[in-house]
Amino acid sequence: MKILVINPNTSASMTEAIATECRRVAAPGTVIDAVSPAYGPRSIETHTEDAIAAAATIETALRHRDDGYDAIVVACFIDPALMAIREIVDVPVIGIAEAAAHVASLVAPKFSVVTVMRRLEHQIAATIDRSGLAARCVSVRSIDLSVLGLEEDLDATIAAIEAESRLAIEQDGAEAILLGCAGLGPLDKELQSRLGVPVLDGCGCAVKLAEACVGYGVTTSKVLSYSAPPVKEYVNMPEFDAAFRG
Amino acid sequence: MKILVINPNTSASMTEAIATECRRVAAPGTVIDAVSPAYGPRSIETHTEDAIAAAATIETALRHRDDGYDAIVVACFIDPALMAIREIVDVPVIGIAEAAAHVASLVAPKFSVVTVMRRLEHQIAATIDRSGLAARCVSVRSIDLSVLGLEEDLDATIAAIEAESRLAIEQDGAEAILLGCAGLGPLDKELQSRLGVPVLDGCGCAVKLAEACVGYGVTTSKVLSYSAPPVKEYVNMPEFDAAFRG
Amino acid sequence: MKILVINPNTSASMTEAIATECRRVAAPGTVIDAVSPAYGPRSIETHTEDAIAAAATIETALRHRDDGYDAIVVACFIDPALMAIREIVDVPVIGIAEAAAHVASLVAPKFSVVTVMRRLEHQIAATIDRSGLAARCVSVRSIDLSVLGLEEDLDATIAAIEAESRLAIEQDGAEAILLGCAGLGPLDKELQSRLGVPVLDGCGCAVKLAEACVGYGVTTSKVLSYSAPPVKEYVNMPEFDAAFRG
Amino acid sequence: MKILVINPNTSASMTEAIATECRRVAAPGTVIDAVSPAYGPRSIETHTEDAIAAAATIETALRHRDDGYDAIVVACFIDPALMAIREIVDVPVIGIAEAAAHVASLVAPKFSVVTVMRRLEHQIAATIDRSGLAARCVSVRSIDLSVLGLEEDLDATIAAIEAESRLAIEQDGAEAILLGCAGLGPLDKELQSRLGVPVLDGCGCAVKLAEACVGYGVTTSKVLSYSAPPVKEYVNMPEFDAAFRG
Amino acid sequence: MKILVINPNTSASMTEAIATECRRVAAPGTVIDAVSPAYGPRSIETHTEDAIAAAATIETALRHRDDGYDAIVVACFIDPALMAIREIVDVPVIGIAEAAAHVASLVAPKFSVVTVMRRLEHQIAATIDRSGLAARCVSVRSIDLSVLGLEEDLDATIAAIEAESRLAIEQDGAEAILLGCAGLGPLDKELQSRLGVPVLDGCGCAVKLAEACVGYGVTTSKVLSYSAPPVKEYVNMPEFDAAFRG
Amino acid sequence: MKILVINPNTSASMTEAIATECRRVAAPGTVIDAVSPAYGPRSIETHTEDAIAAAATIETALRHRDDGYDAIVVACFIDPALMAIREIVDVPVIGIAEAAAHVASLVAPKFSVVTVMRRLEHQIAATIDRSGLAARCVSVRSIDLSVLGLEEDLDATIAAIEAESRLAIEQDGAEAILLGCAGLGPLDKELQSRLGVPVLDGCGCAVKLAEACVGYGVTTSKVLSYSAPPVKEYVNMPEFDAAFRG
Repeated sequence: MKILVINPNTSASMTEAIATECRRVAAPGTVIDAVSPAYGPRSIETHTEDAIAAAATIETALRHRDDGYDAIVVACFIDPALMAIREIVDVPVIGIAEAAAHVASLVAPKFSVVTVMRRLEHQIAATIDRSGLAARCVSVRSIDLSVLGLEEDLDATIAAIEAESRLAIEQDGAEAILLGCAGLGPLDKELQSRLGVPVLDGCGCAVKLAEACVGYGVTTSKVLSYSAPPVKEYVNMPEFDAAFRG
Repeated sequence: MKILVINPNTSASMTEAIATECRRVAAPGTVIDAVSPAYGPRSIETHTEDAIAAAATIETALRHRDDGYDAIVVACFIDPALMAIREIVDVPVIGIAEAAAHVASLVAPKFSVVTVMRRLEHQIAATIDRSGLAARCVSVRSIDLSVLGLEEDLDATIAAIEAESRLAIEQDGAEAILLGCAGLGPLDKELQSRLGVPVLDGCGCAVKLAEACVGYGVTTSKVLSYSAPPVKEYVNMPEFDAAFRG
Repeated sequence: MKILVINPNTSASMTEAIATECRRVAAPGTVIDAVSPAYGPRSIETHTEDAIAAAATIETALRHRDDGYDAIVVACFIDPALMAIREIVDVPVIGIAEAAAHVASLVAPKFSVVTVMRRLEHQIAATIDRSGLAARCVSVRSIDLSVLGLEEDLDATIAAIEAESRLAIEQDGAEAILLGCAGLGPLDKELQSRLGVPVLDGCGCAVKLAEACVGYGVTTSKVLSYSAPPVKEYVNMPEFDAAFRG
Repeated sequence: MKILVINPNTSASMTEAIATECRRVAAPGTVIDAVSPAYGPRSIETHTEDAIAAAATIETALRHRDDGYDAIVVACFIDPALMAIREIVDVPVIGIAEAAAHVASLVAPKFSVVTVMRRLEHQIAATIDRSGLAARCVSVRSIDLSVLGLEEDLDATIAAIEAESRLAIEQDGAEAILLGCAGLGPLDKELQSRLGVPVLDGCGCAVKLAEACVGYGVTTSKVLSYSAPPVKEYVNMPEFDAAFRG
Repeated sequence: MKILVINPNTSASMTEAIATECRRVAAPGTVIDAVSPAYGPRSIETHTEDAIAAAATIETALRHRDDGYDAIVVACFIDPALMAIREIVDVPVIGIAEAAAHVASLVAPKFSVVTVMRRLEHQIAATIDRSGLAARCVSVRSIDLSVLGLEEDLDATIAAIEAESRLAIEQDGAEAILLGCAGLGPLDKELQSRLGVPVLDGCGCAVKLAEACVGYGVTTSKVLSYSAPPVKEYVNMPEFDAAFRG
Repeated sequence: MKILVINPNTSASMTEAIATECRRVAAPGTVIDAVSPAYGPRSIETHTEDAIAAAATIETALRHRDDGYDAIVVACFIDPALMAIREIVDVPVIGIAEAAAHVASLVAPKFSVVTVMRRLEHQIAATIDRSGLAARCVSVRSIDLSVLGLEEDLDATIAAIEAESRLAIEQDGAEAILLGCAGLGPLDKELQSRLGVPVLDGCGCAVKLAEACVGYGVTTSKVLSYSAPPVKEYVNMPEFDAAFRG
């Protein structure tokens, strides 16, 4: 099985970390290829960066659409371009936020998300809502850190996530924690060990759910909402025009 | 007052029709400039086209950000890029779907949306949900037509919208109808006259709500979710890199 | 354009303040007439006062129904008699609570209401729920003050609203503040300046939304829920009997 | 035990029918006094009539507040003035719509309301929502009849309610039927016998729930939302001014 | 009237206390028989104990199904086996959690539950959700005590419930308190006196609601969801096989 | 990896069919052991049978708790005993209804369930609600067949499911179909081929989600709601008393 993991931002080191994390959990025989777009923001912390990265992610998926992948994972915790990519490929497409929410719901009655910047809180809550699982999410919390600042002082990052997670558990009733940024993924097991509750990296969850879909033999419904886009002219976008104008 | 109306698709004739519709309702003294992106899909009927058009719309807004507009209207019924543009400008930004939903809620207890292609139904329902007004929307219905096919047989289009609207009123309990595509806007008064309920063109509603915000002296909250994006490097996007890298 | 603003309570000074506030935001050419009922409570802080004032407000609207107004604004933050007046006139009828909620939703992802007496909290939450926008409202908070006590120590009132608003922003995630009493309206710009988020007076919002409806050419749906009341005998109410018995 | 049943409309024959219905289900030892306001509409089918009747109902409750009643029932299926009367008396106050919804929830997983005029549908749905039990209500349906027209052809009325109830059971999944008008109450057992599901008259339910509250020794919470109104001046309302100005 | 009260756990002293509480509120002429299952857990604090007790409770109900009871009360605050027993008997079946939630909704706009062990919080919230009244419940709170530990230091128990209830009233906006364990029932009036808000014992509420249903002449809908189980073979369960295999 | 699949009913042929279905989708190296309880109903179509089977399922899980399984699947579409078993074992426990709902949400915006008997509709809707995914489920539909009658005329069963599924797709907007009974599982691929949308057997989905949890290294949160039951005396249940009394 070959899974394409698209990191929607253009930080090569994060793409590498995501690849490592995905390979760590992949089943024997699953090949993970991690790529990032040819253009776009270094990190995704705003609606603007989300939208620009979404377009770049679609272009990336389009470029790889005939490369024989069995599934695609979109590795950013606001699930950019998820539904669009479901239209343009025939294989399962899994976002890491929805993946973490689904897995959490299997192991805990209620979960919280702990993310980096505070401005992402409403945006992540909306992402969880799109996954259908808002009823299981008791809070979205954040530490005061930028996405790219995570690795500068890893000990401080872990300590801050741990502290915020404890508040989620004690005050909000969370019984599992979702790490609300792909960059936090590698901390999952260390934090799980410290906190004593499931701590979920969306990348790991998404790889396993992609394997599950492929293994069961189910893929995106193409009957209506995710059916292939109709013939369409794209102005000044030769690549898309070629792909969709027919 | 100067309002910039961005038609997110690249159909010049639709941009022109939108401009006409917006000018028809604008207050004396309100100047309407209607533009469309330099690239992107001819029409927006899928998640893919939505995402590509969103990026193009942001780029368009960015290009005009210092042109002294008092408000921006995004004229596509799935409100692409709405939240992103709120980050990059300081003036009010209004989407036509949310605008129609808000105005409808002032004149009817429940409303329905009637749109073109069936595949847009779930996508428009999600847009209404983002507006906060899902509780007021009793149904999203569609006729079997593409966005660009609307004008080919205008009489048939009107008749189909009228028939579907009557079902919404009689079966779903709608007491107002939202026209779920910017291209349907010019039909609002004719359909209102036929149906005997408010029929709302989002473009008209958005212009009036933009004037309302400006007239009352309120603009987008910049305290958190819509605050200006932080300094950010954009790879292979010189225009965005110049705008955001500082 | 002529807008009738009905202050449902019988405090003449508050009617005057509301009129001033409404005129401050009205478009050139909009005439504001502010009136209050001939009978009823001095202020509205309970369900009882709400209900009595609602009947008095309907009577007031009925008396002015042939005076050529283009829209009616009901200026009390629990929107008394809103739906009834929609039945008895043909022009748009806007409540100040719903108006503030709609405008807030255009400029912020989430808002809070800050009102006067604590006992109004559930009642105002129910009003926001009727507007359809409960999903956008993160909290209703209050200071410990009666409606008529607001003006006794204006500095203390402003300081208390400011403090409670900060809690709403920091603890509840609000990004806009609705002033939950018509009497607080004149403080909107001062508080907006102090807090750095949109601070909304429902009176100002309602006038602009009334202008928007009239300007776009849309009025209350008369197809069912808000259609004119049927012929009806009123016992011991000659004015209503004359109006509705036909 | 003495229960005051207030019919909010001014139809004496309906007050009498309600009294009969209430006495039929009352426990031995429960005295039922049924009254109607001194003024107001003959029947309640609109928001206007609801609001006017609410004020008249409050005045009626106020007049009887020292008459030693153990509970008050408000006998109109949109529960007018319910929360206001809870403020002005210390005994339990039960509305017939909420009563029917509560009892239905004890005997069926889902219920429907069948009412008279179609224009009442959204209004009754809002009433059920206020009761807290919207999640249990699968539909509000209506026959094409005015409140006062019910008795003109009783056989036709029963047949129409029966037919609409069958649709609710078969198409909507209802397993109990609420009669959505006090005037329909006397039909409960006949319809229950025909339909084979619980058919609930709100008057009967309210009397039993009032007895339940009194029997258990619990009354309206006076801690905040339903606490006695504060001292208040009423202009041109000597009775209210005397009652509340102190 | 004869009411069978089933305490789903096997603590005889708790069954006795429940019987006393139920008899205290029962109408003259209502006979209360309180029983507990022949097997099962001493107390119910987990999903496991809930499920085992549910089966034992069904068996208990089945054994008494021909004993002429007019109603059955299930006396454990997570309402075990409620819907099953509705299938196997023809009389009304009332759970104490749903009963308390319904009565609370008649006397307060919002309520909280205060229960014993913290681990029950989500489970009780789910029970309230099943009652249909989640919209009225602002919080489920707990003290740090096991069910059987309640009586060891009654003063400490009362003090802890009182303190937690005050937090619910002041911080969460509760205006009535539900005692979230049958064992807490006898404290209702003492706590009501201390707190100044309605404090509800589900056992008392359930007895009164059972009397209400019987008195009004309504019982469980047998049309579909609660209809008698079809003929069914039970393996190694002779009592059930005899009852259901026919 | 060893997965224990518990069929909660006592139909040996269904246990065998479930085992076959589970093995068909299991990863190489995954061992499936399928068992059913030593006692209980032949099939599960009512709340009563659900509750009795739940207790029997718990006993079955308890008996196997030290047999080294890596995960447990509960193979009945109303997920009996799911939360209880999460308390008594340390490995992931997956229900087939929740599993199908989660997988469907990854491949379709909205899904419907098609089940056997009509009386199960509300019960299955409640099960989906417990999974957290009610927002994704547009309908629960049924054919007129008992669980054990499924295999009597397989062609008729397939045809009925297909017809009902088409209604769900065309009228309700479903884009994936969940087979609402473990006995329907073997029909998944045939129906998927006929309908052209994902058709999900919960057994297949649950096995893959169990593998996903184990593969990612996450198990049930034991911090609160699903923590091991406390020391507890069980009356007349030696096996449980031995297990839990310590």
